[in-house]
Amino acid sequence: MPISNQVAVVGTGVTRFGELYDRSYLSLLHEAATAAADDAGVEVGALEAAWLGTAEPQLGALVGDSAAAVTEALGFAPRPVTRVANFCATGMEAVRAAALAVAAGEYEVVLAVGAEKMRDLAPRESLVAKAVEQSHPVIAKGRTAPGQFALVASRYLHTYGYGRDVLAAVAVKNHQHATNNPKAHYRTPLTVEQVLSAPMAAEPLGLLDCTPTTDGAAAVVLASRRWAERNARQWVLIQGIGVGSYAGYYPALFRRDNDFLGFAATRAAAASAYRQAGITDPRAQLDLVECHDCFTITEIVNTEDLGLFASGTGGAELLAGTTTLGGELPVNVSGGLQSCGHPVGATGVRMVAEVTDQILGRAGSRQVRGARRGLAHNLGGPGAVAAVTVLGAA
Amino acid sequence: MPISNQVAVVGTGVTRFGELYDRSYLSLLHEAATAAADDAGVEVGALEAAWLGTAEPQLGALVGDSAAAVTEALGFAPRPVTRVANFCATGMEAVRAAALAVAAGEYEVVLAVGAEKMRDLAPRESLVAKAVEQSHPVIAKGRTAPGQFALVASRYLHTYGYGRDVLAAVAVKNHQHATNNPKAHYRTPLTVEQVLSAPMAAEPLGLLDCTPTTDGAAAVVLASRRWAERNARQWVLIQGIGVGSYAGYYPALFRRDNDFLGFAATRAAAASAYRQAGITDPRAQLDLVECHDCFTITEIVNTEDLGLFASGTGGAELLAGTTTLGGELPVNVSGGLQSCGHPVGATGVRMVAEVTDQILGRAGSRQVRGARRGLAHNLGGPGAVAAVTVLGAA
Repeated sequence: MPISNQVAVVGTGVTRFGELYDRSYLSLLHEAATAAADDAGVEVGALEAAWLGTAEPQLGALVGDSAAAVTEALGFAPRPVTRVANFCATGMEAVRAAALAVAAGEYEVVLAVGAEKMRDLAPRESLVAKAVEQSHPVIAKGRTAPGQFALVASRYLHTYGYGRDVLAAVAVKNHQHATNNPKAHYRTPLTVEQVLSAPMAAEPLGLLDCTPTTDGAAAVVLASRRWAERNARQWVLIQGIGVGSYAGYYPALFRRDNDFLGFAATRAAAASAYRQAGITDPRAQLDLVECHDCFTITEIVNTEDLGLFASGTGGAELLAGTTTLGGELPVNVSGGLQSCGHPVGATGVRMVAEVTDQILGRAGSRQVRGARRGLAHNLGGPGAVAAVTVLGAA
Repeated sequence: MPISNQVAVVGTGVTRFGELYDRSYLSLLHEAATAAADDAGVEVGALEAAWLGTAEPQLGALVGDSAAAVTEALGFAPRPVTRVANFCATGMEAVRAAALAVAAGEYEVVLAVGAEKMRDLAPRESLVAKAVEQSHPVIAKGRTAPGQFALVASRYLHTYGYGRDVLAAVAVKNHQHATNNPKAHYRTPLTVEQVLSAPMAAEPLGLLDCTPTTDGAAAVVLASRRWAERNARQWVLIQGIGVGSYAGYYPALFRRDNDFLGFAATRAAAASAYRQAGITDPRAQLDLVECHDCFTITEIVNTEDLGLFASGTGGAELLAGTTTLGGELPVNVSGGLQSCGHPVGATGVRMVAEVTDQILGRAGSRQVRGARRGLAHNLGGPGAVAAVTVLGAA
């Protein structure tokens, strides 16, 4: 488990997330990367290698289909640049690739950046419509992303006796959190009534149960612990970073062992990250969690898959305020995907940046008091892959 | 330089390359991966993590746009699977990502697999037409891949006083080599006359100066040196693996420091790999080279960029037989991209497998006698990125 505590996050940079029609993919990438370098106190020219997370370059004009985007945006030549992609876990995979390279001792200080331009296409071309593989006949039968997560939502509500209000509570909590995040796509509070009365997307998920389609970029500078100790102003340690997988493209539909009540990929990723980080009681040992909430139900079941709450109790803990800022274990104090939006390649990097900023005590009005250790989680596929990163104070 | 000699290639698997209309992407991936595992003497279930190289999933039905393809093809859940992509260097990037993870000590034995289905589309949708980024106006003006490499070919012939026969000599050599490779797309010898009289693609590059469009997959199993010493039957060591970049999407056209006589990305990648491997005189210290020959000119200038021959002499060494099987330093004894074809994500992995098989003395009728150390090289972009791997006998 050699990554553990050997790699530091020494700088973070996040652009505003939103409908950024006036910004190009390359300018967003540049803004995030240079902000992260500035925060780390290094020139971009001092970064030895870079990893780019972009998931769906075909949604745009194929910019970001290779890491040449980094070379072009940052003048990065002749240094190594590499693109990684793994559904909605793409951003955290960029962080993991960079962390592995540092842990290998190959580089001392590197860049992980995620970026995605998603608003330049008509909504029917959006991620919600296209995040599922196109060749299979079921796609023609309405198996959209909301449709697939609706299966989980229906099963969860049925099995544990919740109503749609538990789903709405996620949206309300995360939108309230986002009022404290100047970079979120949406910063307007919602009421339960508003969420419940929104147009239905895929029953029981309404429009306000879904992440919006968003542009944005985020970056972190990673360094070896040795480099951080000598050069960094502020830094946190990557205590663990794990990836898990469940099935191929159609996990929710075709695997008999799927109970539609959670995500095995999340459980596998968490087990790996917790082993590295020495976490045995995540609820007690974590101070905050950024958890993938592409749909409201996703947050609820993933908090259970992450071992924060027992099966079926994630909804009750949510309703009791456990996961609200100020509660016992705040989840998505950034506003989550629900309010920040989900520029796919950027999201996992944004989460790592958020947890870093929280541990460093510089999260402003959304600061989790005394945060010393936090977790960031990405789910992709849906449910095909997941990534979990545990970050802790140095 | 911690990768150096810490990571072993313990198994190789390559499918037939060609027009495989009857084979799916997933079945090719499965064949290559299970062959590599068999060769390593391990079950697929013993592999701890996997990296997938696929460059252009949008050429097909987006299969391979995430590493869920590995999960699906191999039943790999719940283990980590990650996709990497970097133009035509994608395959070697998969090997590098896997090698870095092993060098970090995170895993003991892992899979790197590359696959690409390219023949299911009409030729105008082929790589040659689409390997360049689509949004820029120059693409509408014929800036195809052959068009861009033709600029290098013209400049090289003009500057050093060669005729088109030097280009043809690459095609003739590599097609002759491929008669010894049962997995090559083309196994028919060519004459200089045939190459010179082929239809012109982009002057001075004719049709037979271009790699074909091809389906295929290749895989290697990588392990820590410790694991290899305990468990492997036959293995080679990764002595160095480097990536370099030059510019963004339009390097050949827009950068003033481009002399059109070589590829700076190759020079950067080679410098990194040679430093790790302790190579100071590549011509003397290497026994064979697999060199990216997407076009005939690409091989000639890259052999110079790799430091095998002085500038302008790559053509003369080629014509003198230096790089022919049986010559001083054989280049592309597999047949290269010219004859094997270039299923993008697979190519770099195939090259690493070829050099491994050569060093292990199991390359059949194309065996380079006494091969102890070899190099594999990918160029992508064109010229935007490059990757170089040096492999040596254990």
